[in-house]
Amino acid sequence: MQKSFVFGHQNPDTDSICSAIVYANLLTKLGHDVEAVRLGEINEETQYALATFQVATPRYVQTAKPEVDTVILVDHNERQQSIADLDQVRILQVIDHHRIANFQTDTPLYYRAEPVGCTATILYKLYKEHHVPIEPQMAGLMYSAIVSDTLLFESPTCTEEDRLAAHALAETAEVDIHQYGFEMLRAGANVSNKTVEQLLYGDCKAFSIGHLRVEIAQVNVIDPKEVLHRKAEIQHAIEQRISAESLHLFLFLITDLLHNDSTALAYGEGVPIVETAFSVTLVDHEAILSGVVSRKSQVVPPLTKAAETNFLVPTTLNMDTV
Amino acid sequence: MQKSFVFGHQNPDTDSICSAIVYANLLTKLGHDVEAVRLGEINEETQYALATFQVATPRYVQTAKPEVDTVILVDHNERQQSIADLDQVRILQVIDHHRIANFQTDTPLYYRAEPVGCTATILYKLYKEHHVPIEPQMAGLMYSAIVSDTLLFESPTCTEEDRLAAHALAETAEVDIHQYGFEMLRAGANVSNKTVEQLLYGDCKAFSIGHLRVEIAQVNVIDPKEVLHRKAEIQHAIEQRISAESLHLFLFLITDLLHNDSTALAYGEGVPIVETAFSVTLVDHEAILSGVVSRKSQVVPPLTKAAETNFLVPTTLNMDTV
Repeated sequence: MQKSFVFGHQNPDTDSICSAIVYANLLTKLGHDVEAVRLGEINEETQYALATFQVATPRYVQTAKPEVDTVILVDHNERQQSIADLDQVRILQVIDHHRIANFQTDTPLYYRAEPVGCTATILYKLYKEHHVPIEPQMAGLMYSAIVSDTLLFESPTCTEEDRLAAHALAETAEVDIHQYGFEMLRAGANVSNKTVEQLLYGDCKAFSIGHLRVEIAQVNVIDPKEVLHRKAEIQHAIEQRISAESLHLFLFLITDLLHNDSTALAYGEGVPIVETAFSVTLVDHEAILSGVVSRKSQVVPPLTKAAETNFLVPTTLNMDTV
Repeated sequence: MQKSFVFGHQNPDTDSICSAIVYANLLTKLGHDVEAVRLGEINEETQYALATFQVATPRYVQTAKPEVDTVILVDHNERQQSIADLDQVRILQVIDHHRIANFQTDTPLYYRAEPVGCTATILYKLYKEHHVPIEPQMAGLMYSAIVSDTLLFESPTCTEEDRLAAHALAETAEVDIHQYGFEMLRAGANVSNKTVEQLLYGDCKAFSIGHLRVEIAQVNVIDPKEVLHRKAEIQHAIEQRISAESLHLFLFLITDLLHNDSTALAYGEGVPIVETAFSVTLVDHEAILSGVVSRKSQVVPPLTKAAETNFLVPTTLNMDTV
């Protein structure tokens, strides 16, 4: 059997990196020839997790085809979030917890998506289903991914399955379930030494919403003011991005880890959709989205709904496939 | 929790009917409010299976929305093969063994696809994963579905997992693994009393291949001559269908259960793609496709490949999403 790459999405977060490493570990034990790789820089939160559990950083790749004919996607499926030459290779498997969109194959595949808070929670179940023991290092990475995606179980995306998996994994990894989790999130929430580009593109995803090209960036912070005092600089960078990428909307979510809500900065002609979606009025492009911490479950669905009814969007056709 | 419909594809085959019934059984035991329904007529093979195991025929529905807001798809995912008002409801789950195409959701869901020969093989695994005992009736329906989809384990789509599941299920259902299977296939292969419409549309699926609108029908027979002596009548019906549905290609596979190959009848401007795909020359629209019994693994992939390189198809864009 030829080697396959296993990778998460571009601008990888802790789940995308850890789930790629962990699933490659499981597949290797099941006899598959795989290598976990990454499609972008490792953020500080993920660095903290990898350092704690002494796991090496996966190799960075930009394309698959020169090295492999087959790939396995974790933590994403939309092709605009994936490897640049996805259409040149065969997708063997997908393990994910997001909506399915801009995804198509010519042949049957193994696709495992569950509406849970984190890809690693599904991987935890796969170890059980295959009766493969979980090493403490792998347990630590899965636990880190669940903490990251659920903001220490505070996100509305967090399910009972995520909590049960996290508790079992913390025990195997021998970490204090809340202390380690908070330290890891705090490592990622340190924005003082980040450039504006790192703030905006450390965790930025592209979406087709209605016929709109949208990018939604998110940064976790202990205090939103640490980011908002650089608003002029941020606005300038976003406006350049909108122009360069022909975006209809750029939404930047500054998520307050202590209060569990987000300050939104929105730019582009799609701004009215943000106001409709969240019933807010943007003042100088800014509004607080009360209780909103999850891009996936609290931001993309209302934006999609608002886009369907907004005058800007006469159709629900998908931009990327037109 | 509100009720959900569980259903297979239009023109349902034995897997689509049995997997809907069986998965509804499992979900009910897990506490979900679901009803198995069907999107079309029950064929004679499926009738034989339902009668043998004394299971009632699911109710026929044309649309979901008047009754439910949520649906669960088995044995398909492409929307042109699904319920007419799929875009009006939320897809909660998909259990399938086909390629993924023309499929999109706004929200995360449970999606379980595996590259096995039959949806029922995946359901067998789900019973095991949930530690739910399988009743003999449900085992009989799953066994019937596997026999049907794999042509009694002769199709190249049949995997070791299908064989293992089928053997365990036959034991639970208390049927003779080969005798029952062959009798069921023979019940479905009785074409003497079928109209041309029943021959063509009993198991007919629509595909977007490259930019071509394609329909591929299949009928299993003990002797292809029983169908081919009505070729003039069949040709007339297909030509009307091509015109009515603006198809580029209609491919009719008459599959010989005893010799494990198919006679193909091809009509429409896409006929050269069939010749390229299978390296055959059609004589009076007819050719034998040696060893070909599986539409999914032996027909759609070579047609897709041929369409990509054929002069008729300048692009691989998907018709349904343009």
